[in-house]
Amino acid sequence: MSDAREGAVPHLSAEEFRRLGHRMVDWIADYWARLESFPVRAAVAPGEVMAKLPAHPPEEGLGGDAGWEAIFKDLEDVVLPGLTHWQSPSFFAYFPANASGPAVLGELLSAGLGVQGMLWSTSPAATEMETRVLDWLAELTGLPASFRSDSGTGGGVIQGTASEATLVAMVAARERVRRKLGREAELVAYTSTQAHSSVLKAAMLCGVVRGVSDDVHLRQLGTDGAYALRPEVLERAIREDLAVGRQPFFVCASLGTTSSGAMDPVHALAGVLERTGVTAAGGWLHVDAAWAGSALVCPEHRGMLEGLEAVDSFAFNPHKWLLTNFDCNAFYTRERKALLEALSVMPEYLRNAATASGAVIDYRDWQVPLGRRFRALKLWFVLRHYGAKGLRAYIREHVRLAERFTSWVEADERFELATPRSLALVCFRLRPAPGEEPPATDARNRQLLERLNASGKAFLTHTVLPGVDGAPARYVLRMAIGAPRTEERHVRAVWEQLAALAQGA
Amino acid sequence: MSDAREGAVPHLSAEEFRRLGHRMVDWIADYWARLESFPVRAAVAPGEVMAKLPAHPPEEGLGGDAGWEAIFKDLEDVVLPGLTHWQSPSFFAYFPANASGPAVLGELLSAGLGVQGMLWSTSPAATEMETRVLDWLAELTGLPASFRSDSGTGGGVIQGTASEATLVAMVAARERVRRKLGREAELVAYTSTQAHSSVLKAAMLCGVVRGVSDDVHLRQLGTDGAYALRPEVLERAIREDLAVGRQPFFVCASLGTTSSGAMDPVHALAGVLERTGVTAAGGWLHVDAAWAGSALVCPEHRGMLEGLEAVDSFAFNPHKWLLTNFDCNAFYTRERKALLEALSVMPEYLRNAATASGAVIDYRDWQVPLGRRFRALKLWFVLRHYGAKGLRAYIREHVRLAERFTSWVEADERFELATPRSLALVCFRLRPAPGEEPPATDARNRQLLERLNASGKAFLTHTVLPGVDGAPARYVLRMAIGAPRTEERHVRAVWEQLAALAQGA
Repeated sequence: MSDAREGAVPHLSAEEFRRLGHRMVDWIADYWARLESFPVRAAVAPGEVMAKLPAHPPEEGLGGDAGWEAIFKDLEDVVLPGLTHWQSPSFFAYFPANASGPAVLGELLSAGLGVQGMLWSTSPAATEMETRVLDWLAELTGLPASFRSDSGTGGGVIQGTASEATLVAMVAARERVRRKLGREAELVAYTSTQAHSSVLKAAMLCGVVRGVSDDVHLRQLGTDGAYALRPEVLERAIREDLAVGRQPFFVCASLGTTSSGAMDPVHALAGVLERTGVTAAGGWLHVDAAWAGSALVCPEHRGMLEGLEAVDSFAFNPHKWLLTNFDCNAFYTRERKALLEALSVMPEYLRNAATASGAVIDYRDWQVPLGRRFRALKLWFVLRHYGAKGLRAYIREHVRLAERFTSWVEADERFELATPRSLALVCFRLRPAPGEEPPATDARNRQLLERLNASGKAFLTHTVLPGVDGAPARYVLRMAIGAPRTEERHVRAVWEQLAALAQGA
Repeated sequence: MSDAREGAVPHLSAEEFRRLGHRMVDWIADYWARLESFPVRAAVAPGEVMAKLPAHPPEEGLGGDAGWEAIFKDLEDVVLPGLTHWQSPSFFAYFPANASGPAVLGELLSAGLGVQGMLWSTSPAATEMETRVLDWLAELTGLPASFRSDSGTGGGVIQGTASEATLVAMVAARERVRRKLGREAELVAYTSTQAHSSVLKAAMLCGVVRGVSDDVHLRQLGTDGAYALRPEVLERAIREDLAVGRQPFFVCASLGTTSSGAMDPVHALAGVLERTGVTAAGGWLHVDAAWAGSALVCPEHRGMLEGLEAVDSFAFNPHKWLLTNFDCNAFYTRERKALLEALSVMPEYLRNAATASGAVIDYRDWQVPLGRRFRALKLWFVLRHYGAKGLRAYIREHVRLAERFTSWVEADERFELATPRSLALVCFRLRPAPGEEPPATDARNRQLLERLNASGKAFLTHTVLPGVDGAPARYVLRMAIGAPRTEERHVRAVWEQLAALAQGA
């Protein structure tokens, strides 16, 4: 019972917390069971949610768990109508953001323990479990042994997002090259036009580029017909820059681009860096496999790893497609020293015997923030609950569904694949009508997507793929299969709806 | 029941999730009830936790909720012994990291919903609730109206940590000054020697300083007898830099330094920036009130806000001292445009009608990462559950306990306060014996702290405060009161233990 004394702090009692906690767990289980009843994409107008929330904070608290009726009512009336349901089995937009029972329990436990893992000493279990579980994940995904912590020189860490992973890699690269070549080198980074926007954002944050449009210091290179970075294009760009006295310091390769799931040829790109002397100068090759990396739990998808031994860092998001709630990015480097040299700051108030001994990992030196949650718990729960076998089955089922969807697109002459299927991502569109100008085809596809999404029965998003060999750019629909509850009937339903809408398109 | 078919994905069934969820809630409630039975600081050696975890990931999953017995057993045998218990009522180290029942329920719900709030359109409720709740918090803490979103030009956002808040502010400042003065300006930032290490780390990340020891581009200025930044010292440094052609662009003031809770004079510092033309050049004044900011819910602590109208950004951590689990930093700016101009990147695959309309906030443009959890839920739960009245009572009780502790230190001639109490932080030490050299006094204090912490009955940390007016630096103990379950008896017990240990010290 809450303490009602004047001036007392109205903490929930243990019994109140149990009751509310059980109720919240049940609410979530019910929510998951109701997912198919909601419009997938929120159907609210700007300001509509805000208007339902009081303009001023409450002076009085709720006075115990009975007061929480008001909160549960608002979850129904205010929150649910304003959500786009990422866990819906008919969510096929962007890339998936996986929640699962085991991961939710891990997040809950992490919050309940409320420990900080900034230093080994501030909760050794948080650090050592993270080290071990990331070594597990490296083994499960077939990464080179040099990326594991038990190599002694490399290691893994949980970052919040792929954006932070790229930023940390870029900063480590910047400092490594500067240590070799001095502070005045004019640094240049390279990626493809198809790389994730976070590469540009990282370059903006770390001051390498000077604004969004600086194509001198971050060169976003054109791709081949499969939207992959071409080694010869990278090599030409690097040699051009070297010739005018600029210093290449960082290349971000993508395995599974956001637009179309394209795979850059890591092995060949690493060869370019070696051949041009960029590697010798301390230059860094980072691989962003944010979405596709989860598929590496299946041996049949490990072809993309060719050349990974020569890579400096590699990151993917179990929070995208490996059943572990956001946020959970698995970041690996072959050279942990480069991170420490770029990111370590040691104020007096954090000094401690364990750190001084050099025998422990302090993950704060591997990341942007100082503080960190005990995120290894959720990954530990997921890996133990599902096991390697369960995770492989999970990925394979989504890939199988994407193959099914692809076959339906191919069998319908009104549609065409925009690119070959990549894992569980299918890019497709309405085929141009005879003599139709490209903007008209794009407009029909845009209308098709908007009508589908407005129905609330499914949610897909789009991209624009650049033209190849002088062809115009194309507006295409992305079917990204990866929600934990998606079954074949959901994929079939969205296809049937598309086919029906296409009749009038 | 789990699906045992060959190749089936062994998701938890709804009933299994309910059972396990209830059990995890109960485990957490039991953990909180058991907190006083654990050594506060973990008593494990490096590698001890790791050795209890299998070297390889499991091939088979747990096969349903019955398999989770193994996990619950490991929580007892592997996890608990490796924790430093931040929620213990006898945790007085660093600054607090508050968990509370309502916040844990919010984190649980956020994980269960599993929505992404990167864009307004990806879940409007996540954005609009965050906007509203941060306006509530601005009102509760007495911030100027220009920091609220309803000002139309300013606004609040939840960042992960104060480190990220400082980084974002610094990047926005860098770009604002560069827009006014061109790209070649040699930028200089300023803070005090007592500012948090994250200011230096932010400067390293964003490339303004070139390594930890670059005191040209980040000037860490000496403080006064109360460890506060001196306006005349800042003014002299700025004028020196301007005289040699460098451009001051960023000042980080601290309200409540980590070492001693010192308060920089914000009003006077803002005056310096105005007077020296730094403000006119686009220079930025950021206020880091990571810990102390929560005390602003009490009107009696709002003296520190003097001059805040002239500040560009202000941030504090509800996850430190306002009952909201890590991570939750409340970041406010008067000029949201400066953030957007420094951090916005718009790839095709994120384009949407709401963003194009300009009528909505997309918080991804206010932060480092792209993705973001629905963290507003936990803050909403905390503010509603406790109400303004409950939050004030919470802060006041901790301040009262710190006053009690201070009085005991002052009444014992073997001890002395190292600085005046700041809110709920007390810096103290064993007084130098007659004729004792400073290193000997430091050593006695270090031993006292280590003996106290080794007992497991409480956990405090230390700092070193620089000497004032030529005096030597001092090793001091920090008593930071702020765990949600701390009562007077816990504070009294640690004092009695210190007094007993001091007999032999």
